[in-house]
Amino acid sequence: MRKKFLFTPGPTPLPPEVQEALSRPIIHHRTTDYQEIFAEVNEGLKYIFQTQNPVFTFASSGTGVMEAAVVNLTREGEKALAIVGGKFGERWKEILEAFGRECVSLDVEWGSAPRVEEVEKILDENPEVEVVFAALCETSTGTKMDIKSLAELCNKKGKILVVDAISGLVAMELRTDEWGVDVVVAGSQKGIMLPPGLAFLSISEKAWKKIENNHIKAYYFDLKKTRKAYEKTDTPFTPAVGLIVALRESLKMIKEEGLENIWRKFSLISFAVREAVKTLGLEIFSRYPAEAVTAVKVPEGIDGIELYKAMKDRIGVQVAGGQAHLKGKIIRIAHMGYMDYTDAIVAISALEMALSILGYSVEFGKGVGKVMEIFMKEGVFK
Amino acid sequence: MRKKFLFTPGPTPLPPEVQEALSRPIIHHRTTDYQEIFAEVNEGLKYIFQTQNPVFTFASSGTGVMEAAVVNLTREGEKALAIVGGKFGERWKEILEAFGRECVSLDVEWGSAPRVEEVEKILDENPEVEVVFAALCETSTGTKMDIKSLAELCNKKGKILVVDAISGLVAMELRTDEWGVDVVVAGSQKGIMLPPGLAFLSISEKAWKKIENNHIKAYYFDLKKTRKAYEKTDTPFTPAVGLIVALRESLKMIKEEGLENIWRKFSLISFAVREAVKTLGLEIFSRYPAEAVTAVKVPEGIDGIELYKAMKDRIGVQVAGGQAHLKGKIIRIAHMGYMDYTDAIVAISALEMALSILGYSVEFGKGVGKVMEIFMKEGVFK
Repeated sequence: MRKKFLFTPGPTPLPPEVQEALSRPIIHHRTTDYQEIFAEVNEGLKYIFQTQNPVFTFASSGTGVMEAAVVNLTREGEKALAIVGGKFGERWKEILEAFGRECVSLDVEWGSAPRVEEVEKILDENPEVEVVFAALCETSTGTKMDIKSLAELCNKKGKILVVDAISGLVAMELRTDEWGVDVVVAGSQKGIMLPPGLAFLSISEKAWKKIENNHIKAYYFDLKKTRKAYEKTDTPFTPAVGLIVALRESLKMIKEEGLENIWRKFSLISFAVREAVKTLGLEIFSRYPAEAVTAVKVPEGIDGIELYKAMKDRIGVQVAGGQAHLKGKIIRIAHMGYMDYTDAIVAISALEMALSILGYSVEFGKGVGKVMEIFMKEGVFK
Repeated sequence: MRKKFLFTPGPTPLPPEVQEALSRPIIHHRTTDYQEIFAEVNEGLKYIFQTQNPVFTFASSGTGVMEAAVVNLTREGEKALAIVGGKFGERWKEILEAFGRECVSLDVEWGSAPRVEEVEKILDENPEVEVVFAALCETSTGTKMDIKSLAELCNKKGKILVVDAISGLVAMELRTDEWGVDVVVAGSQKGIMLPPGLAFLSISEKAWKKIENNHIKAYYFDLKKTRKAYEKTDTPFTPAVGLIVALRESLKMIKEEGLENIWRKFSLISFAVREAVKTLGLEIFSRYPAEAVTAVKVPEGIDGIELYKAMKDRIGVQVAGGQAHLKGKIIRIAHMGYMDYTDAIVAISALEMALSILGYSVEFGKGVGKVMEIFMKEGVFK
């Protein structure tokens, strides 16, 4: 009977509407019934991506569409820039190199993000670079990149900008067309409130021109073939029908709530969580904290893995630990998808109690009190 | 209130146990709870693949693992043999060519399959060929290939055999290890009774040796990286957790029923359906009919698309039409997954009524009677 809470930056909890849709009998994908759902979903995706360009859906993890972006947008031997400040920036680099692209990487300390002038400098030093790979939210460190300014720079320089918004989309402000972002990739199990298994990417006309001129080796992730099928409201291969049917439900919920309202909600929740964490005497790991996930430095003398375990196994509240060299050093609390204001209270209360269990001195209610104070001040529950 | 039946060769209907599992709250994949499920599923997959080798699961359509087999097992410029007698044989060829492999294709008429001597001849003419790509069941034509003999030949000649069992697995006899099949690929939405979105492949030690020596360009479908993660009961990228949890349920059901019993069931069902079809004066399209799907020639003067529509929209029974040049020429009735003896009665009764609606002369009950006669004779309902 222990009630459980999932605050990992993917997968995120499923709304009841999505759970219900997932349990429906399966339908065949080459029917008008399915085509209607698929067309509706494609429109809903444009809204959450804030774009008029088509958004393509693949049956894959987010990494699949990262690969799709790399292999379709760049040629073998081509030099491309990746911004690397965490595990997912490294993934851009790894994919580029796996397919024989030359990766120029702008490495920043984990938890930091480059200033736009630094990106400009490296682009000036490498004029052959045509495509820039970055992330809206570097999930491994809870760090936000100023995509608006980066897009401005890329457009000024005639570069194509590809943004990993796998953990950022829906939770964080991203105005794809308005800011001039060319390609945005995302996954189903974060802000979109679905199980993992779908991945998405939107593509600007500027990016299409380069894709059309590239002679590439791809099949499952071939975007030209995908676009051709989409023209007939179809996909080249069997779509993950069950997830698409559920996607219609989550997209409806997001539309009803309003994307800007959701951005504001998670902006406020993440602010309250950061303030609460500081009130407890702990530090925020990132210099540029993202709204979608907060990385908290585990205090001296406390083992981060034990902290994670105490929260999960004793209290029922699951956050994420650190990855790679941050293992045991940070915990990460997600603010995305089917999470609400009260969840921030639950998360901080679990943090207080787990810290206390591990011998860290806590004045119970101090962190949670800070969260409530902020919510009340902002009139959240009015 | 119209009750609907799905007899397409994927997706197939979901059992209630699977529907229930799909609607459960999502869990995180880096937890011991998930690892236990994942380990159980991996064992269950070995059983249905009839292999002691590892079976890897990807979040993708079946085509994704076909690509995985091609890019990991062959090098650029390498000559490989594909047996092509339908849409999915063509897919092997397309994937090989998309990645710059040289495809030698053994083309047979759609609805037919090559004799093993023909394969031997083409292998003798092309001694550089190291890998042979075939299908247990060519879904587009309902045709079965004699994989046992083909595996014998490949082993004799030291070739690696890759079998597309996407529509055949579970429904049709396939003894991977006993017959010496090196690589088997499958999808979730056919015999495995899940929604589409997972794809699987098993790999023999002989195939691994070649994979290890190939320097390949892959990332999402990189099998070496996948194997490394599996050694720690993990996957390189976020798995489709919800589908994996449901997979545990369907694998349990298959184990309980017994694979050989399921093979026998669909062998008898497909036999009864073929006999019923012939009783109605119609012909079976394939010269070597598969147990997993029956392709029925649409009689002269009847439009196959109208026949499909009458069955689906008037009676509620959805079969599949023909693909490519067979569009309108055949209908395909699946015998796989969560389908049972009574379903054959429903399918044939729908065929009788739809034919009659379209003006074809039918003595009602003649086809269905043949089905019942066979089931009774075989003691199905004893």
